[in-house]
Amino acid sequence: MTPPRAPGPADLVITGCTALTHGPDGEILFVDDATIVVREGVIASVTAPGAGSDQDPAGPGAAVEHIDGRGTIALPGLINCHTHTPMVALRGLAEDLPAHAWFNDWIWPIESNLTERVVALGARLACAEMIRGGVTTFADHYFAMDTVADVTEESGLRAVLGQAYFSSQGPEGRAASLDFALRRRGTAGGRLTTCLAPHAPYTVDDADLAATAELAREHRLLVHLHAAESREQTDHSLARHGRTPIEILERAGLLDVHLLIAHATGLDPARDLPALRRAGGDVAVASAPRGYLKFAWDTTPVRALREAGIPVGLATDGAASNNTLDVWESMTLTALLQKHAEHDPTWLTARQALDHATLQSARAVGLGEEIGSLAEGLRADIILVDLTGPHTQPVHDLAATLVHSARSADVRTTIVDGRVLMRDRALLTLDVPETVRELGELLPELVDRSHGRRVQEYEG
Amino acid sequence: MTPPRAPGPADLVITGCTALTHGPDGEILFVDDATIVVREGVIASVTAPGAGSDQDPAGPGAAVEHIDGRGTIALPGLINCHTHTPMVALRGLAEDLPAHAWFNDWIWPIESNLTERVVALGARLACAEMIRGGVTTFADHYFAMDTVADVTEESGLRAVLGQAYFSSQGPEGRAASLDFALRRRGTAGGRLTTCLAPHAPYTVDDADLAATAELAREHRLLVHLHAAESREQTDHSLARHGRTPIEILERAGLLDVHLLIAHATGLDPARDLPALRRAGGDVAVASAPRGYLKFAWDTTPVRALREAGIPVGLATDGAASNNTLDVWESMTLTALLQKHAEHDPTWLTARQALDHATLQSARAVGLGEEIGSLAEGLRADIILVDLTGPHTQPVHDLAATLVHSARSADVRTTIVDGRVLMRDRALLTLDVPETVRELGELLPELVDRSHGRRVQEYEG
Repeated sequence: MTPPRAPGPADLVITGCTALTHGPDGEILFVDDATIVVREGVIASVTAPGAGSDQDPAGPGAAVEHIDGRGTIALPGLINCHTHTPMVALRGLAEDLPAHAWFNDWIWPIESNLTERVVALGARLACAEMIRGGVTTFADHYFAMDTVADVTEESGLRAVLGQAYFSSQGPEGRAASLDFALRRRGTAGGRLTTCLAPHAPYTVDDADLAATAELAREHRLLVHLHAAESREQTDHSLARHGRTPIEILERAGLLDVHLLIAHATGLDPARDLPALRRAGGDVAVASAPRGYLKFAWDTTPVRALREAGIPVGLATDGAASNNTLDVWESMTLTALLQKHAEHDPTWLTARQALDHATLQSARAVGLGEEIGSLAEGLRADIILVDLTGPHTQPVHDLAATLVHSARSADVRTTIVDGRVLMRDRALLTLDVPETVRELGELLPELVDRSHGRRVQEYEG
Repeated sequence: MTPPRAPGPADLVITGCTALTHGPDGEILFVDDATIVVREGVIASVTAPGAGSDQDPAGPGAAVEHIDGRGTIALPGLINCHTHTPMVALRGLAEDLPAHAWFNDWIWPIESNLTERVVALGARLACAEMIRGGVTTFADHYFAMDTVADVTEESGLRAVLGQAYFSSQGPEGRAASLDFALRRRGTAGGRLTTCLAPHAPYTVDDADLAATAELAREHRLLVHLHAAESREQTDHSLARHGRTPIEILERAGLLDVHLLIAHATGLDPARDLPALRRAGGDVAVASAPRGYLKFAWDTTPVRALREAGIPVGLATDGAASNNTLDVWESMTLTALLQKHAEHDPTWLTARQALDHATLQSARAVGLGEEIGSLAEGLRADIILVDLTGPHTQPVHDLAATLVHSARSADVRTTIVDGRVLMRDRALLTLDVPETVRELGELLPELVDRSHGRRVQEYEG
């Protein structure tokens, strides 16, 4: 005799905002004066005034939490599709260098000093930066991933975590990556998903890559790696192996699983685009344009990848090369640099940049069914962006305002799974001053390179 | 019998900040735990702890105003070397377009609707945005400059203002520009300087340019114009006149006065660099890299200009093309894009970017003796930048932190001539909500293009 649907008060109701939503073909839509209702971590409804069918019957006043969203736009939380959170500890340490010197003289020697404590503090600072920048999900590829998983859990963020490995570690590297992936997937109330994380085709050999593809298939795991980071790397690979990095991945069977390729700025159009077109798996690329500029690399060929049907998600890479974990900046730079790279001011419109930041990024990290849009039934990962600042007024075109005038510092509120992690710019889950203080004490030991060791040799 | 120097209490004392200063050769230095003393709008001293010779004898407590600068870095206020403040009213209106369509189909038709009121409101919003972004001086090149001058005076900012003209206006255009320059220079307590502002070699004819050079010499005025905005423009100029835009300026005598050239992305190295090297005047370039990306133009050849001895100041252009008036972003983009343009990750270091943002920008707008450095005797144009945010920690290299991690939203306090215009992100001189509200009411009339008029025809 109970009615089919009698929800109690909502957990969270946001009223009066403009909501960015997606139409049936994925097109960007804006709903003015929207009401967003959240129940049990899920978006129950996003409605325009009067539409009301799925609004909380008792009104926002009856919700456990009510946020007045006037003056803001609600977006799906941003997704950082490729980063190395602990490298925040190295932010700004190795500047104005070519990639080989950056790796061999600075990063890989210093990474041999990493401790669990530095990893934890770097990851915590990274999570704080991302929450403040409106990032709600990140795909991390690094060492000591159990520590990163613990920090992620504490932060309230969603993440796709992979324990990195080189073939120089022997089969234990791959085994540890699998062990981590199986142990931690689905933890933190489902906020953690996991992946296998071979470093790159130039540090992981063909047999190891092929074994990784097998494991990915067997355990239905995403594989996340670096490949074709620069044209120089591709040329080097061709000279040494007669194959491009993408062709090496294809031969190993990695294009037939769910694969997330970081960077792909060095694609060989004639060889790699056909390989990507015939890929049997869900292959995606993560683009982190800021670092490419710093290393004087080309940028990811987004137009060619689009034509090949490959989603391109937005990323920041680690702060040691990129200096920020600011996905909003990656969105803006993608819009700007793609025009430049294609010599075409009409290409990569603001709306397309928003598509990369939302649907394409969610697909890239394997969460296209759960996040990336403000839609009923998806997880309630929502950010509220303040558009009242003088730099975002007047608004003639909301997509242009978001991509070209607003910035990460305009994010006022960050919500993951319906839980508020930042309210009015104040972080609610992490203590930044204490983290900075403790990390500061550990820096002298961290940056010591007198030992002459390094974790790898860059010959990419 | 009075002692030679018995100052009363300082007007303003800032304590506990790190101060960016310049060494004898212009190199960037950082003074920790600095005290900055301001008297009568001028920097009286910048001292390290213990140095104290020029500190306020009665201590900061005796100053009229004391700012606790702990956790911040004090920089010379940023200088926007080329903008069109009223175009903020058109921000985001004409997007993803090539330059000719942007001018002919959108901007120049809509500019024929401009009213004094729209100019005032656009300029006011622009000043608010710049104060919040740490800009203390801007060089504006537009119409209705008396209105802009009034708004600038109200805002508390410093500016170099020029009334724009086309030869299509007849000699009255040039005369009005001169009249404005002579009437308003030195007003607003000396915060306003002025210039002559011919639009560009493609809209101002040779005779008009030559007459402008004469007036500049006679009245000791800066000339501020657009030239060599794109390679396409240069090619067009060569095809039509047999001379590059820079050669047209040289022939008109404009390279022998104090000249500020906006953009110069279309320089012809073989023809223009020798012309710039033999320039008899103080010639400088303003670079606004964001808009060049949007139009898919090349960027300003900073390295070649440096080798030719030409200062390059940072700029944003108008918000109708650039979408922001964020000079901090121009600094960051200059550092990033120059590496990309020169295929050299070691070029344009963070310190050089700071040099462009400070000394070179001050020289570019003709105020090298008054602003651009935190040094005794210069005007007290100071910004305090918060470095406590997670995105700017840890600090391994302060120059890299400033250029590659910090951003305009980290500016907490903006001071011009010793007067605080923004304190802890709150604007003290301008009312943004009221400006946005009134401008919003005027937008429908502003954007009407049904009349078919335009202020010019772009054939650049």
